Amino acid sequence: MIVVLKQNPNREQLDSLIAWLQDKGITIHTSLGAAHTILGLVGDTSALDIDLIAALDIVEDVKRVQEPYKNANRKFHPEDTVVKVGSTQIGGGTLTIMAGPCSVESEEQVVAIAKAVKASGATMLRGGAFKPRTSPYSFQGLGATGLAYLKAAKEETGLPIVTELMDLSQLPLFKDVDVIQIGARNMQNFDLLKAVGRQEKPVMIKRGMSATYEEWLMSAEYVMAGGNENVILCERGIRTFEHLTRNTLDLQAIPVMKRLTHLPIIIDPSHAGGKNWLVDPMAQAAVAAGADGLQIEVHNDPARALCDGPQSLRPDAFDALAQKLLKLHECIRSING
Amino acid sequence: MIVVLKQNPNREQLDSLIAWLQDKGITIHTSLGAAHTILGLVGDTSALDIDLIAALDIVEDVKRVQEPYKNANRKFHPEDTVVKVGSTQIGGGTLTIMAGPCSVESEEQVVAIAKAVKASGATMLRGGAFKPRTSPYSFQGLGATGLAYLKAAKEETGLPIVTELMDLSQLPLFKDVDVIQIGARNMQNFDLLKAVGRQEKPVMIKRGMSATYEEWLMSAEYVMAGGNENVILCERGIRTFEHLTRNTLDLQAIPVMKRLTHLPIIIDPSHAGGKNWLVDPMAQAAVAAGADGLQIEVHNDPARALCDGPQSLRPDAFDALAQKLLKLHECIRSING
Amino acid sequence: MIVVLKQNPNREQLDSLIAWLQDKGITIHTSLGAAHTILGLVGDTSALDIDLIAALDIVEDVKRVQEPYKNANRKFHPEDTVVKVGSTQIGGGTLTIMAGPCSVESEEQVVAIAKAVKASGATMLRGGAFKPRTSPYSFQGLGATGLAYLKAAKEETGLPIVTELMDLSQLPLFKDVDVIQIGARNMQNFDLLKAVGRQEKPVMIKRGMSATYEEWLMSAEYVMAGGNENVILCERGIRTFEHLTRNTLDLQAIPVMKRLTHLPIIIDPSHAGGKNWLVDPMAQAAVAAGADGLQIEVHNDPARALCDGPQSLRPDAFDALAQKLLKLHECIRSING
Amino acid sequence: MIVVLKQNPNREQLDSLIAWLQDKGITIHTSLGAAHTILGLVGDTSALDIDLIAALDIVEDVKRVQEPYKNANRKFHPEDTVVKVGSTQIGGGTLTIMAGPCSVESEEQVVAIAKAVKASGATMLRGGAFKPRTSPYSFQGLGATGLAYLKAAKEETGLPIVTELMDLSQLPLFKDVDVIQIGARNMQNFDLLKAVGRQEKPVMIKRGMSATYEEWLMSAEYVMAGGNENVILCERGIRTFEHLTRNTLDLQAIPVMKRLTHLPIIIDPSHAGGKNWLVDPMAQAAVAAGADGLQIEVHNDPARALCDGPQSLRPDAFDALAQKLLKLHECIRSING
Repeated sequence: MIVVLKQNPNREQLDSLIAWLQDKGITIHTSLGAAHTILGLVGDTSALDIDLIAALDIVEDVKRVQEPYKNANRKFHPEDTVVKVGSTQIGGGTLTIMAGPCSVESEEQVVAIAKAVKASGATMLRGGAFKPRTSPYSFQGLGATGLAYLKAAKEETGLPIVTELMDLSQLPLFKDVDVIQIGARNMQNFDLLKAVGRQEKPVMIKRGMSATYEEWLMSAEYVMAGGNENVILCERGIRTFEHLTRNTLDLQAIPVMKRLTHLPIIIDPSHAGGKNWLVDPMAQAAVAAGADGLQIEVHNDPARALCDGPQSLRPDAFDALAQKLLKLHECIRSING
Repeated sequence: MIVVLKQNPNREQLDSLIAWLQDKGITIHTSLGAAHTILGLVGDTSALDIDLIAALDIVEDVKRVQEPYKNANRKFHPEDTVVKVGSTQIGGGTLTIMAGPCSVESEEQVVAIAKAVKASGATMLRGGAFKPRTSPYSFQGLGATGLAYLKAAKEETGLPIVTELMDLSQLPLFKDVDVIQIGARNMQNFDLLKAVGRQEKPVMIKRGMSATYEEWLMSAEYVMAGGNENVILCERGIRTFEHLTRNTLDLQAIPVMKRLTHLPIIIDPSHAGGKNWLVDPMAQAAVAAGADGLQIEVHNDPARALCDGPQSLRPDAFDALAQKLLKLHECIRSING
Repeated sequence: MIVVLKQNPNREQLDSLIAWLQDKGITIHTSLGAAHTILGLVGDTSALDIDLIAALDIVEDVKRVQEPYKNANRKFHPEDTVVKVGSTQIGGGTLTIMAGPCSVESEEQVVAIAKAVKASGATMLRGGAFKPRTSPYSFQGLGATGLAYLKAAKEETGLPIVTELMDLSQLPLFKDVDVIQIGARNMQNFDLLKAVGRQEKPVMIKRGMSATYEEWLMSAEYVMAGGNENVILCERGIRTFEHLTRNTLDLQAIPVMKRLTHLPIIIDPSHAGGKNWLVDPMAQAAVAAGADGLQIEVHNDPARALCDGPQSLRPDAFDALAQKLLKLHECIRSING
Repeated sequence: MIVVLKQNPNREQLDSLIAWLQDKGITIHTSLGAAHTILGLVGDTSALDIDLIAALDIVEDVKRVQEPYKNANRKFHPEDTVVKVGSTQIGGGTLTIMAGPCSVESEEQVVAIAKAVKASGATMLRGGAFKPRTSPYSFQGLGATGLAYLKAAKEETGLPIVTELMDLSQLPLFKDVDVIQIGARNMQNFDLLKAVGRQEKPVMIKRGMSATYEEWLMSAEYVMAGGNENVILCERGIRTFEHLTRNTLDLQAIPVMKRLTHLPIIIDPSHAGGKNWLVDPMAQAAVAAGADGLQIEVHNDPARALCDGPQSLRPDAFDALAQKLLKLHECIRSING
């Protein structure tokens, strides 16, 4: 941590700051310049509250040098995390394809889609039972009944289930779920993060619409600090000034996350752009950029979907895309060695 | 609602769309142009799912004409809502000043600050007992104990309390709280919104860091749809590309909200900029723009604050500011008649 | 164009608006609803000033249905534009690789890099002679001398040159340049756009840091309206809240532009992220998403580059990347048919 | 400047970096930590290229401590700059009100508006002769003829003129103009900035739509580095995710600029929000936040304005606003002492 002092700092306050820091086992290197004095703090600065120091009258600025996340930090955990999910795995060079409807609507619907996407090569079934909707007047999902339909589809196809948990009170209902999804709007619902950190199922954290990389990793850190190391990241588009697309898909997130953390990263091209004609090219781009997998919305009748229709693919379009993605993944692995 | 059709739409699909709409009691006006055909839908379109229509093959675009919020809409409720809180009120031409520490740290601290801010003219006490912190390693608030300290301060001063609820499981602890605050990170925690909509205490909803005006109002609509009409809005800065300040305070939100809704609006200049030297000018600007009140962080020893230190004022600075704000509010009312 | 009227519009003003529109040859379809009256304007609305109509007292909102760009619009020009540059071409299924230094520093430097990148498969030489620098104290480019060095490199290698024009007064110096680049900061320098529209060399327009897709296309329209149809688009990252990377590369721009316009699109992964380790994965992603080419910074000694060092590749890293991109382009073409 | 080294930096490269820095007269303080080594560079680091150092293999990060602007920096010029314009002045506790039409349309129009706004208390006349328009098909301004009309209005009323310069080739036409305005889209047109820096008229620089405070000040620095110290800043709204308003007016810019620089700052509430009902409350807020003045669009017939109609006030509405602003300025000065 680096503390930049104001010009001519009050000597007494400076001595008091230095004493307080030394008391915490921090070693201080002082660089006296004409315009600024800089303190280089060496030692375990993770316990220091940066805001507290920044609030001092004599301090102009505080700059952190160390990342604030530990469990999620690749520096302290250089090997890739591979998350086991049923008979499949996420990370470690595989390409996970999670596919399914935005909302679970009926058992027939979800079983039919599950069979179709499995035949096309999907390795996991996605589907929403609890749905975060902007409007209280929109369909809010089938809830527990939706989870039962997902379970039926899992029994029929063997595909593990990933579905969203919106509130910690719903957790007891998730016992047949394989991966708990934390939605973008709940990425900083810290009580929810703590709750899923205290249980054992893998957790996939969608990036908040305006979350920085660091905030996203801090949300992963909340789960990991609770003891659950099976965390998966999912980029689903960030909010920008551009409104022709619903959100801007940030594929730089893939190499950035590969560098900062050991956790696997999934891309959701369906929600990002909000248009089904964007799914195919962006899914290919995600694979080329090194994503560990994709989450894709598939609907057997998009025109009648109860939510998020414009971004869903029909099973035949998904099938064509899945074949491309599998070939491209082959190609990317062979090219990048 | 306006539906823009693609060029040369499939006749059969168009007939089917028109029949489906008419079946829902919608009247359709068709404008045939060279490049586009436009359907003007007249009637109660609030029950129509815009995404569903947009997903149709023959549709190029759907544009909504009516606002998706009803209870919060000034069109259907032209008079200003005034929220009664204890012996005070929010809205209706008054200037509410909510002041207090970011975090409740001890009974002594919060009682001392409550006395000080009351003497300076504050009309409500703010203070965090449950704290949303980006890092799992930061101080998370005193929880129930913090609520007890706030209650003690309320008993001592008579100031009503506003404090943040982070999870619906904490609701039973809030019986002595006067206004329930929903934090920016929980603005779209829909289960939480539903829960506070089913109880009677006033609810203050902070704008999410990247929430549009409409999304913010839809969150108010969630609470109101549950039966609780005592909703207060609070602007606390939005996330932009500018990082010298923590967030960008959007004061246009004041006249925009006065136009779109009848709900009162409070400004939080402390969290917005994240720097204590921004609080004074921005609080004055908020009053001049017509805000119904302010939420300001005050700490008796900012250098030792456990969180959010850089943005807190000391009681003497708050006192000076409060005197200015009361005079300015007078002046603004006399100028604007 | 759709005009949404306020409730109970003044009858006289409405008649006057309708008469004025009819006078311009516009047919008007009126949809009378309980809450709103909607006018559907049919005919050539491109000459109507949307702001003028929106300013009327009786108007609540105006929504455009037609795109404001014509020459650049794929609807009126369905086939892809292919831009011929020397013996090469941009668009039409080819993969253009523009490579070279951020700044031209010496004849030796640029000739050496030109030879190296040509050997690796680059098809055009990029290099800055006039440099837009945020600080007046930073190196501003070699100007005319830099152009001479580029010309020498072109003579030596046969690679066509793409370089930035910053002011229309510099245009006479550009006679040996093959493609004129308009930088992101000048994307809405309309006098400059008009000037390059009146000459014949192809123009590559970098997207402004906060330009919407439509604004970007309107800048292309400025050039095309002047008579020059050889316009190339280049996405180089947009400004968002995320600051770990310099900008956020928006790869959705590729399918969006392919849909809206017939113009080719190039991706610049070097400037977007501002870090050389992002170039390789994002260049691959761009090819997979269907880009017509890439612009990549290559430097023979990045540590001594006079500008933009952190994002440049050394020739050996560029060579490895170029080989991957050529294979990937093959693969993508074979997969996507 | 602070250089954070990677773990276990190559010793030879480190020695070479240290030698190179010492050669430039920089003193280096080294802080060896377990995880990072930090170099504190003391001396005149303004000549060091931060990107060059950041590009080195052994460097993880470089953090600047000193601001990159000098002439504009309040640290080196603590007193407020007051810009003299004819018989008026900008800054120094005065409230400058610049008012007039978006576009100059006719001599009658601009003379009539000039008389009206002068009578209401405006101290400068604004009006566009060269107009930056997103579309090549929109009205582009009257150019030299427009400047002549502005001159006529100045002769009639004595109001000094502020108008936009779009290209340096237009500069010779500006001899009767009092303040040269650089538009938001040209804020980083560096050749234009250099040109106005080499002449003597005051220059008002509008903040670019996505320009950071620092970039804005660097544009001021370009002008000042050329020898022209009479620079005025103008905030006109920044681009954010919110699209109900045209842009988000950033009033925090006022206290931030007052702290970072000695230059006066003007607020343009007309362009920021793009709606005339936002002008009144935001103008009042700007005065309360300490702005040195306002730029407000006034039109004698908004419904027929050739551009930017929705944001213009009619003379009577402007008159009412101007009276409020003058009273509020009085009040703010008396409150803030």
